[in-house]
Amino acid sequence: MAKIKRICTFLLRLIAFGTTLAAAIVMATSHETTSLFAVSFEAKYTYTPAFKYFVIANAIASVYGFLVLFLPSDSLLWRLVVAMDAVLAMLLTSSISAALAIAQVGKKGNSHAGWLPICGQVSKYCNQVTGALAAGFVGIITYAILLLYAVHTVLNPLLVQKT
Amino acid sequence: MAKIKRICTFLLRLIAFGTTLAAAIVMATSHETTSLFAVSFEAKYTYTPAFKYFVIANAIASVYGFLVLFLPSDSLLWRLVVAMDAVLAMLLTSSISAALAIAQVGKKGNSHAGWLPICGQVSKYCNQVTGALAAGFVGIITYAILLLYAVHTVLNPLLVQKT
Repeated sequence: MAKIKRICTFLLRLIAFGTTLAAAIVMATSHETTSLFAVSFEAKYTYTPAFKYFVIANAIASVYGFLVLFLPSDSLLWRLVVAMDAVLAMLLTSSISAALAIAQVGKKGNSHAGWLPICGQVSKYCNQVTGALAAGFVGIITYAILLLYAVHTVLNPLLVQKT
Repeated sequence: MAKIKRICTFLLRLIAFGTTLAAAIVMATSHETTSLFAVSFEAKYTYTPAFKYFVIANAIASVYGFLVLFLPSDSLLWRLVVAMDAVLAMLLTSSISAALAIAQVGKKGNSHAGWLPICGQVSKYCNQVTGALAAGFVGIITYAILLLYAVHTVLNPLLVQKT
């Protein structure tokens, strides 16, 4: 039973590492140049602060995820990992929210502010950003599951003890 | 000692309730109409999905914060409150990130996407949104402190027990 749990946790951490790495790479390589009325128009993730933040947050999460994969199962550092998971879940949530808010404006525009949608002009770039956001979303869900599982296993003995 | 701790927690929860309520109200009442070349131009929080999300998240947090204030200190529900605090901290983080990303575009614009800043036209509206974001930020910091304190008190006996 303990072995199955350990394998499940390892697989979840592998998924978390893979998806955050994929999100960072896909977003970082998103780039498209298009010309409109002989004026060259370039779309790049570095032009949007929210997308830069998304890449940095996912890069940090993937480095952390990679290091945790090699932590021996009897290490005392696992206590710290619960707190770190919580911090990373917050960081990833914040980065994907900011990126989603901007992506929504890029897709739909905001007629009240006079911001036009740009996805019609740079659809390849838009699709790539959407892919990165989807990968980032899977990463967050995985971290949320890991966190809730950790809270469950940490709190449960305490609950039994007190009642 | 236990009494001082309880008073501190109560004060923190009072601050969390007050700031999230203030953030929701200030954002919800933000509104300005200005005319530009005889064309009336209206700025309202409902025109931006991210700001609507911010109001809803802060309203939920303030209702929850209000209810928790009246929870008796020996209630078993306090165990649930730790998990609820974590969920609310995530919700508030996500809402303020999205609102900040949009507010940044409103303030600075994005020249690459052709989105012009609108704060020059509706400065009163902009200032009110900034105020709401500041109040929301204090609310998140308070929830983060409450959460870290709860994790500390829940994990500590376990740490002592195991080593």
